[in-house]
Amino acid sequence: MIYDIVIVGGGPAGLTAAIFAKRANKKVLVLERGMFGGQVATLGKIENYPGFTSVEGSELATQFYSQAKAMKIELKADDMQKIEDGEIKKVICKKGVYETRAVILALGSVSRELNVEGEKEFIGSGVSYCATCDGAFFKGKKVAVVGSGDSAIASALYLKNICKEVVIISKYPELKIKSYNESVLDKLSGIKIYYGSLIQKIIGHGKVEAVELDTQKEPVTLDGVFVTIGRRPDTDALKNLLTLDEKGYIVTDANMHTSRAGIFACGDVRSNSTKLIVTAASSGAIAAAEAIAFTN
Amino acid sequence: MIYDIVIVGGGPAGLTAAIFAKRANKKVLVLERGMFGGQVATLGKIENYPGFTSVEGSELATQFYSQAKAMKIELKADDMQKIEDGEIKKVICKKGVYETRAVILALGSVSRELNVEGEKEFIGSGVSYCATCDGAFFKGKKVAVVGSGDSAIASALYLKNICKEVVIISKYPELKIKSYNESVLDKLSGIKIYYGSLIQKIIGHGKVEAVELDTQKEPVTLDGVFVTIGRRPDTDALKNLLTLDEKGYIVTDANMHTSRAGIFACGDVRSNSTKLIVTAASSGAIAAAEAIAFTN
Repeated sequence: MIYDIVIVGGGPAGLTAAIFAKRANKKVLVLERGMFGGQVATLGKIENYPGFTSVEGSELATQFYSQAKAMKIELKADDMQKIEDGEIKKVICKKGVYETRAVILALGSVSRELNVEGEKEFIGSGVSYCATCDGAFFKGKKVAVVGSGDSAIASALYLKNICKEVVIISKYPELKIKSYNESVLDKLSGIKIYYGSLIQKIIGHGKVEAVELDTQKEPVTLDGVFVTIGRRPDTDALKNLLTLDEKGYIVTDANMHTSRAGIFACGDVRSNSTKLIVTAASSGAIAAAEAIAFTN
Repeated sequence: MIYDIVIVGGGPAGLTAAIFAKRANKKVLVLERGMFGGQVATLGKIENYPGFTSVEGSELATQFYSQAKAMKIELKADDMQKIEDGEIKKVICKKGVYETRAVILALGSVSRELNVEGEKEFIGSGVSYCATCDGAFFKGKKVAVVGSGDSAIASALYLKNICKEVVIISKYPELKIKSYNESVLDKLSGIKIYYGSLIQKIIGHGKVEAVELDTQKEPVTLDGVFVTIGRRPDTDALKNLLTLDEKGYIVTDANMHTSRAGIFACGDVRSNSTKLIVTAASSGAIAAAEAIAFTN
């Protein structure tokens, strides 16, 4: 079985690409290593996706997924490790190898890590990168959100409804809130903010018990650390295959072509992409149009 | 009252631009001469807009409109006649003149005309450019759809449910169906198709009674003519202001900048745009980001 188009990544970009490829009657497969719907599924209330006045991220992600399912698009849970180029390309994953005439990379991005002692050790035992995914495990507990941007604030407000106490650890002397929300500062009342502070170490036995901050003499005791300091592409597996920018994002032209014929990229993994759901979806539609033409 | 951003056109591109501009706390106004929701409102079933498995065009248009209303975005029914450039730009319309620091042109496109005798005379009396808008007036009557593409076929199928008889007049020796739909030919059974035929004249007294075809000796008697032969930009008012392409579409860069600072264009009115709802919406978001930066 040789596919026409294998799409790696099942977020808004990848699923939109799949919808358009399927409508063109292509043999199409979407691979996703995590949740279909992608990063959207981890977001709270979304009010800037056209067509939805206000929708929970998890609900919008489900909509994207249901739409693909309704079109009988083949969706598989698998994790891409490597791509071998050729007239027939091989998408080599943890579970299987998929042969295809064209590839669309819609890998999105992953959470940036703190890279401090204790972080890796306690992933799943107090360290999390997603408040809406893991917040419920911290009911009645004390947690810190690390970060200064909109996502960090949204995470803190989300956790405030669940946890006994929420603190924010911001490396800047102020928060960096971009999105318009006049009441956000009101809402943050009751949340202690450690400004200009960096985590030196995450401490615990079997699970997180405290963090050391460079601005505090004593460790801050807590049960959870939500790391929300931005995102990065996860493209190490592609660096010998495709042209990447200095941050690791895939370089494409305006029509989503990468440096290799028949390999396209769309969504947040593209260099200099606008990080919006609607823009990711649109780029998926364009990548599909190009992949359709390539395989006709 | 000087606006930050006046958006001309209330389709997916214009309304998305408005949503993002409003979220950035800009004073924003959207002008629309026809229906808010734009061309989408005239479409039948839509199955390629991400987030909606299957939705009527009129319903999706209403969603876009409701979202803008919910955000308390100022929406006005008015028809742009001219734009005067300057640090403060003037958008001169039929009813009013609006002063603004930036303009986003989201004009979309209009139906292409046949340019035959009787066409203009009978607009609203048997000649229509929109089956879903006007089809209901032809219940139990005989109508022709002029055209060969997907829109023409969709119009014919829509009208088949309403009218006593539907014929298609195609200037090509075959239909030009792009969208994937294996059952479309089945569905067209019972619809007579005049292939390779051109309308010479639309005949009637007060209302349409027949059309003359170059391939038929006798006039074809009917009650309505739905002209569905593609679309064109309506940018005559801008040709001395902005760089247009040879077909009249507005030339922009990838960030929606036109040839004039502070004037942006998005959606179908852009030169070489991908004619998809999601792509139009995405370009509106990008135009808004640029207009926001311009007026900061």
